[in-house]
Amino acid sequence: MSDVYQRSLELHRAHRGKISVESRVPIETREDLALAYTPGVAEPCRAIEADPAEAYRLTSKGNMVAVVTDGSAVLGLGDIGPLAALPVMEGKCCLFKHFAQVDAVPLCVDERDPDRFVDAVAKVSVSFGGINLEDIAAPRCFEIERKLQERLDIPVFHDDQHGTAVVVAAALMNALELLGRPLEDCRVVMNGIGAAGSSIAEMLIHLGCRDLVLCDRYGVMDRDDPRLSDRQRELAGLTNPRRVKGGLAEALSGAQVFIGVSKGGILTREMVSSMAKDPIVFAMANPVPEIFPEEALSAGAFVVATGRSDFPNQVNNCLGFPGIFKGALSVRAREINMEMKLAAARAIRDVIASEVERDRVIPDALDPRVVPAVARAVAEAAVRTGVARTIG
Amino acid sequence: MSDVYQRSLELHRAHRGKISVESRVPIETREDLALAYTPGVAEPCRAIEADPAEAYRLTSKGNMVAVVTDGSAVLGLGDIGPLAALPVMEGKCCLFKHFAQVDAVPLCVDERDPDRFVDAVAKVSVSFGGINLEDIAAPRCFEIERKLQERLDIPVFHDDQHGTAVVVAAALMNALELLGRPLEDCRVVMNGIGAAGSSIAEMLIHLGCRDLVLCDRYGVMDRDDPRLSDRQRELAGLTNPRRVKGGLAEALSGAQVFIGVSKGGILTREMVSSMAKDPIVFAMANPVPEIFPEEALSAGAFVVATGRSDFPNQVNNCLGFPGIFKGALSVRAREINMEMKLAAARAIRDVIASEVERDRVIPDALDPRVVPAVARAVAEAAVRTGVARTIG
Repeated sequence: MSDVYQRSLELHRAHRGKISVESRVPIETREDLALAYTPGVAEPCRAIEADPAEAYRLTSKGNMVAVVTDGSAVLGLGDIGPLAALPVMEGKCCLFKHFAQVDAVPLCVDERDPDRFVDAVAKVSVSFGGINLEDIAAPRCFEIERKLQERLDIPVFHDDQHGTAVVVAAALMNALELLGRPLEDCRVVMNGIGAAGSSIAEMLIHLGCRDLVLCDRYGVMDRDDPRLSDRQRELAGLTNPRRVKGGLAEALSGAQVFIGVSKGGILTREMVSSMAKDPIVFAMANPVPEIFPEEALSAGAFVVATGRSDFPNQVNNCLGFPGIFKGALSVRAREINMEMKLAAARAIRDVIASEVERDRVIPDALDPRVVPAVARAVAEAAVRTGVARTIG
Repeated sequence: MSDVYQRSLELHRAHRGKISVESRVPIETREDLALAYTPGVAEPCRAIEADPAEAYRLTSKGNMVAVVTDGSAVLGLGDIGPLAALPVMEGKCCLFKHFAQVDAVPLCVDERDPDRFVDAVAKVSVSFGGINLEDIAAPRCFEIERKLQERLDIPVFHDDQHGTAVVVAAALMNALELLGRPLEDCRVVMNGIGAAGSSIAEMLIHLGCRDLVLCDRYGVMDRDDPRLSDRQRELAGLTNPRRVKGGLAEALSGAQVFIGVSKGGILTREMVSSMAKDPIVFAMANPVPEIFPEEALSAGAFVVATGRSDFPNQVNNCLGFPGIFKGALSVRAREINMEMKLAAARAIRDVIASEVERDRVIPDALDPRVVPAVARAVAEAAVRTGVARTIG
């Protein structure tokens, strides 16, 4: 692991960062200058002034995403600030381009008040076709996403929440399919109700999950706990129908599914053994999962997924956000709604529908079939739900 | 002219905008992903958290410029707003890349209050190594530039002001050299004291001009005129030592130099004839100059320059901003001060020192010798004046 860190540092140092901005038109002759810049450029300006929708035909706006952070919850590093978060944001931009041919630039914002953050980003969002929020701490991330989306008519998407939820949902659907077990009949226990956990819970409820128990470091979430954020309290009210009390161990007894987006090592062999037969264990804490796959399997787990690329069944956001944005941008969607997220999850699931095995409930992060399938499904869902604008 | 507009529209439509963002590192394998993104990217993040200066070695910040506008004074189109200004900003980004290998992205800002504009731009400036302000109306542009530069430790440069001034100064120095006439001995009359005019006036004073008369649409600027902005009043106090009164015609009588950044057609043959022998006429209104070159020449002008590429002696900002930013970024300058601007002007002048003729007082906009010479001179001036930071 220290080796990958050292080599990453060397890569960044050798390239002095990872992104560049290129001209897509020639700038070689006076004629080129006259068309790309003055005096010719006045005409596209006039056309956009007359009809703002022309910006999607005459500028890069329609394919340009801002990757926006305040640096408050970066990877597992925590609150390292907007400047130190820049390598992650640049990396995300590289992934946007590689996987989806979407142009993306980092926007690292030095502001911690949610309203002032939203205000600054909204004001500078004119040239962007979408906003990817990244590595913003909960619960601030919920308020920022909601308020920014209310203010803008371009999609605002906090990938740590919804990207993760989409990929988890895809993997879970395949794992349950393999077992012939409908989600409606499962007891699902989640540990970790931050950004990712909240969105996963919401999506599971939309997928039909009726017995979801949410836990955090204090045990089963109690809807009367004054520590809960608004979002958590809302979720607490929608879950735990059997009124389970106690800790993670009590919640897991007899459960069919465990989903962890929490802390390395918190899931014991004994807890897995106490679950229902052939349980599904998604242990996605990074870099150390809630339980290592070999332990979980030896304790009876049927399918194990993690966030790591060195084990089977990697839940990797690269399967989600590139196609989701590509699809949303392709129809100029005003937002990315639940139907679009569910469509993305089903598309990821379906890519490997005929290839599903215990060690393969989710496509490989580099599977070239994923992004086009997701983009198509998301675009269709946007049109179906009425949030798409003219295509063309 | 209508042809260039039509072809520009077609170019923009065919490409859907002019810029793209590319990855400079490979994203082909799992190994690539692990180095450019998680988990490896955590290490560059940690390095920057420990020492913010590492951002210049590990990210694209040091070579990344934001091209920032509010769309209030776009080309000759006026106040068309931030979205309709986007084609110009993208064009500028193309020029940055082509001429100086500097990465640049448009930031179109939907805010007209100077303080709130400054606040939004300052907050999102974290990932940029410099700010190029563009097409912002006077007098707001002066306040925005000053306040933004006070707040940030990266260069803030309003190109419409200073880029134009640098190139005008270079051309004027060559024209005067050709005549063997020192600037100190010249009467200079300017018409138009907006963004560009103010900065040109300031630079001429720094170059030793002692008899500068400033005019606007109301005639010779009167330091007691209540219509003057703070900046104009300051300049009025530094100019017009002979206390000339009246209109442009009165001011020009006996003058050696006319510099117009005003309005097409306002300079007559008679006015040129009334100037001193062999006058220098810079008629830079666009697209229609204050006087057309053939008219000015027939009225006795010795050197005529315009802003147009279809006449000799084109005063083109492409000669200035690419090298100025390249030089400032190369030494991580905290600002772009007057010494750096003067160094840029002298470097542009010197590129064609041995080739100067009446029809060639300024290098061609595409002359490949200009940008490296300007960048070197600006970097040296930054070091000399103590605004550069560590190089390397």
